[in-house]
Amino acid sequence: MIVTVVGLGLIGGSMALALKSSGFASIVLGVDINQQHQKTALKLKLVDHIENLKNAVQKSDLIIISIPVNQSGKVINEILNYCDKQTVIDVGSTKYELAKLIERHPKRSNYVASHPIAGTEFSGPEAAVKNLFKNKVTIICDKEKSSEKAYNLTHSMYESLGMKSIFMSSKEHDVHSAYVSHISHISSFSLALSVMNKEKDEKNILNMAGSGFDSTVRLAKSNHKMWTPIFIENKNNIIEVLNNYIQQLQSFKEAIMNENQEGLSALIKEANGIKKILDNK
Amino acid sequence: MIVTVVGLGLIGGSMALALKSSGFASIVLGVDINQQHQKTALKLKLVDHIENLKNAVQKSDLIIISIPVNQSGKVINEILNYCDKQTVIDVGSTKYELAKLIERHPKRSNYVASHPIAGTEFSGPEAAVKNLFKNKVTIICDKEKSSEKAYNLTHSMYESLGMKSIFMSSKEHDVHSAYVSHISHISSFSLALSVMNKEKDEKNILNMAGSGFDSTVRLAKSNHKMWTPIFIENKNNIIEVLNNYIQQLQSFKEAIMNENQEGLSALIKEANGIKKILDNK
Repeated sequence: MIVTVVGLGLIGGSMALALKSSGFASIVLGVDINQQHQKTALKLKLVDHIENLKNAVQKSDLIIISIPVNQSGKVINEILNYCDKQTVIDVGSTKYELAKLIERHPKRSNYVASHPIAGTEFSGPEAAVKNLFKNKVTIICDKEKSSEKAYNLTHSMYESLGMKSIFMSSKEHDVHSAYVSHISHISSFSLALSVMNKEKDEKNILNMAGSGFDSTVRLAKSNHKMWTPIFIENKNNIIEVLNNYIQQLQSFKEAIMNENQEGLSALIKEANGIKKILDNK
Repeated sequence: MIVTVVGLGLIGGSMALALKSSGFASIVLGVDINQQHQKTALKLKLVDHIENLKNAVQKSDLIIISIPVNQSGKVINEILNYCDKQTVIDVGSTKYELAKLIERHPKRSNYVASHPIAGTEFSGPEAAVKNLFKNKVTIICDKEKSSEKAYNLTHSMYESLGMKSIFMSSKEHDVHSAYVSHISHISSFSLALSVMNKEKDEKNILNMAGSGFDSTVRLAKSNHKMWTPIFIENKNNIIEVLNNYIQQLQSFKEAIMNENQEGLSALIKEANGIKKILDNK
């Protein structure tokens, strides 16, 4: 099977590597508007050839879109225009606004909306790793809007990556993502900013960074080209989570100001509930 | 050398293990008010014997206090009463309020205030691990208030654990800790609470938890018996950091509400500065 990957960053590059390695793809074609990424992807053998979008689509059975979410709608519509029997999937982190941009395309059913839940704080083709997706979960959105053929192909592709599929609507997807992923990134970015504003002397950060700081701030290394569009696409859900999160912080602040030991302990014990959930994974 | 460890939790238990294993301690005596912890510490061979506080102090060369920070002042004063030539150190996460409680004791110079920067989100004697401290940093506070003998013994103890010592006042220590450690914990607790309040169905958390959530929320597993006292002891600094942190979150919220791509990208790029600092470690 010939697979085209549009967008040769961390996710697209890792998928290209994994699909070639699993044997699912016999040939992987790469499309990227960034010439440096094209060169790196060829050099690292993430893809077999670089093509322009139209040629790549016409030669392929499956096209995977892995570009910033605010650009996906336009590119997917363009690809659907070139399509005949091909299946087109995107792997972006927001889905609801995108779904609205594509729903009226006559070839909508060639398209499958998906979101493999995997990543690192790194970006670009150099960050691609073959086993990024293994034993992780992928979300398929609005499954009923895809043809059986397109869905089946997508499902077997994710199976070849070692992923389990779960299903929800685009709308539900974006609410959950805001709560479980997007807020974690805003929390980390804000933490990094607070610390750097205060600790002008980097040594103090370094010396004290053993105590849990590293893990809470890890995501603050994430790339703005990916995350700025996600935050704006998922604006309404994220504002809701941010309000909720700031309210929790205010509860801590109030309990600390009042030296309310019982109240603080109650908040912490409630938060400890996350242990049971994460340890069941 | 005979070493007493008062408080056989994660930190005390790990020190007991490491000091015995490095040969620094020939015998480790354990003191803990919790009988279950006493039994577990003996069973796991963290300590050689359990003793009451007074007996243990009188038999020892070095006493290490590893108990919740709001109880340390009283216990250290009591130990100093029993002391003659012994050295007493505490390993707690806040220092300024504690320093004030001890500064007038006639044997103040037998005491060294320290904070080894190491830990995990687990607690209790079962969580003790031998190599917790290796290649980490320990902070020594108000060094000038300790006798040369007490300081030298403390220094060689930390050396035997593989730790590097750095120096600051109790006051500075608490400011830095608030920014680099304490806020990370409040951030994690609040994140866990926000997500659990929204996601009543645990499956949704589980399914989406690959995307960075695990690492930002890891510290939310931390124990209230340790953290409630820390937050209250370091109240003023923590309120300052919380205000600063909430302000950063508000900046994100405002930029997202206004769909201000440039502003959001600028915030993220500034936060990315943490990469350079952490990667230099």
